[in-house]
Amino acid sequence: MTIKDIAELCGVSVSTVSRVLNNHPDVSAANRERVMAVVQSSHYVPNNSARDLVKPQSDTIGLVVRGAGNPFFTGIIPVIEQAIHQAGYTMVLHQIRPGEDELRAGAELARSKRLRGLILLGGRFDYTKDQVALLGIPFVCCTYTNSFGTLKDTAYSSVTIDDRASAHWAVKQLLAAGHRKIAVLLDSVCDHSISQLRYLGYQRALEEAGIPCDRELVEEAHSFDMPVAYESTLRLLARRDDFTALFVISDSMAVAAMKALHDHGKRVPEDCSVVAIDGIDMSAYVIPTLSTLVQPQRALGENAVAILVDILEGRSGSRHLLLKTSLRQGESIRVMK
Amino acid sequence: MTIKDIAELCGVSVSTVSRVLNNHPDVSAANRERVMAVVQSSHYVPNNSARDLVKPQSDTIGLVVRGAGNPFFTGIIPVIEQAIHQAGYTMVLHQIRPGEDELRAGAELARSKRLRGLILLGGRFDYTKDQVALLGIPFVCCTYTNSFGTLKDTAYSSVTIDDRASAHWAVKQLLAAGHRKIAVLLDSVCDHSISQLRYLGYQRALEEAGIPCDRELVEEAHSFDMPVAYESTLRLLARRDDFTALFVISDSMAVAAMKALHDHGKRVPEDCSVVAIDGIDMSAYVIPTLSTLVQPQRALGENAVAILVDILEGRSGSRHLLLKTSLRQGESIRVMK
Repeated sequence: MTIKDIAELCGVSVSTVSRVLNNHPDVSAANRERVMAVVQSSHYVPNNSARDLVKPQSDTIGLVVRGAGNPFFTGIIPVIEQAIHQAGYTMVLHQIRPGEDELRAGAELARSKRLRGLILLGGRFDYTKDQVALLGIPFVCCTYTNSFGTLKDTAYSSVTIDDRASAHWAVKQLLAAGHRKIAVLLDSVCDHSISQLRYLGYQRALEEAGIPCDRELVEEAHSFDMPVAYESTLRLLARRDDFTALFVISDSMAVAAMKALHDHGKRVPEDCSVVAIDGIDMSAYVIPTLSTLVQPQRALGENAVAILVDILEGRSGSRHLLLKTSLRQGESIRVMK
Repeated sequence: MTIKDIAELCGVSVSTVSRVLNNHPDVSAANRERVMAVVQSSHYVPNNSARDLVKPQSDTIGLVVRGAGNPFFTGIIPVIEQAIHQAGYTMVLHQIRPGEDELRAGAELARSKRLRGLILLGGRFDYTKDQVALLGIPFVCCTYTNSFGTLKDTAYSSVTIDDRASAHWAVKQLLAAGHRKIAVLLDSVCDHSISQLRYLGYQRALEEAGIPCDRELVEEAHSFDMPVAYESTLRLLARRDDFTALFVISDSMAVAAMKALHDHGKRVPEDCSVVAIDGIDMSAYVIPTLSTLVQPQRALGENAVAILVDILEGRSGSRHLLLKTSLRQGESIRVMK
């Protein structure tokens, strides 16, 4: 399948197809949609640059980070870079915003840099076979896996914690301390991603304790950003402030939530306990220190690279690795009398 | 000058020179020193790989980050990556620890990746002509400039804030609030780097206010890490706890220092005011929020790339840009009665 074939199939000009593939703005939405539908269903990997064609196979591994500036990823990127370097490869980094499509970014990088393989740091949890076909190279999902998708296990690799079990464990810390009214701050309950899985863990913990899930105590920020987490917590507090504990799905959001609780006049942990998941450095120095489930950042990064390099060098096929979190007990949980 | 010439000059074998250049461990310290002395004085840029020689000129710009995991750089790296991408180049990232030599790392990257140019994010302030000769490509210092070195202005480019003036301004905030006993937490007073410049700004502000510099109130952490900043602040407090204000040279260190003050029983700002420089996101959400001079992260990154690309494309020569900081007033400064 060439770019000409696609143009014919879509009934558009070759230059229109080229503009779509190169993300030019001057294409109608209808044409863009038509071209992308054919590109995706045909598993076409665009590769129409004469310059690209004469280059030898590269030693380059791509790293696409979804969530530029996410402090949790700050601890993993240098680990991945060092491991790629030590394995004798070159890393090309591309950071995208949380809302952007990492598969599209990865496919463009794979083409323009002639990547050997790809690591996705953060991404969607619901890939289908057609969606990943655009990549055309081995890839590893780092910090997540394809929990909601239809992709076969053999079609990709992953290194992650068990998000649902970790959330379950975090909320059990609050239950064990005697809390019954436990709110949750998350991105979304149905993002088919990290947030939804952690929400399911929260739900299961409440269910096991015989506590009905109170929808008013569930606050969706629709973002992982600190300013939004701060505003969302204030919104939750304006609606209901009778909860005695709060589970937050990430450390950086939890720091912002603690500030909102403080500004609302609720002391942590005296009036409200807080627990989170991630274990970034900063959360050990906020006041009070945050109780959190620490993700093994080094092991996540090193294993993602090891799996990819094993595949590239023919030593193994796809693998899926589940790593454990560990509790870093802070000062943010109060035991109820 | 070839690798053979160097071997002859040093009286060692070609393979010894090769081992030194490739950082192999099995070389005697004496031979390593001899070879590096000749390499440096001869401005030899190693390039002895047959594979490298057949590759066309690359479109690659290197980014060497000194201080992997530094939260201040987390806000700049995506900006640099995006600007390099938009200018049509490829970024190769290499992160090193604060103690490592960014010029050596940059020279190795320049050779192995056939870089067109280099951006150094964080580094030493005291380069000499001989030291940078190893690079052999245009480079831009981002977030610092060569304040203590002998390098000519035309030999490199830089984008930075005025560290001395910013520190001076930060300490003046404390003086204006009526403080006279002002401690300082820094990396080192004589690191020929960011820390020394900010110390000079602190000294000048005290001097102008007629306050003699009390060496017991100067705490050197010899690190920018949060755990070390925390321990250093406790050490300062064990020695002297009669100061009413503390200037810290970076935001992340200041967050750790505020935690140490808290654990020592000093409330911020009631018992001790704190001011810092950097303006990372997190310091707007700690309790109390940190008063800090914000560095323009986006402008630092974008201008570093713009200057380098202008040089690579023949539009201009070396440039030096000094950017302004702005005060983000937090809750960490108390006005004395």
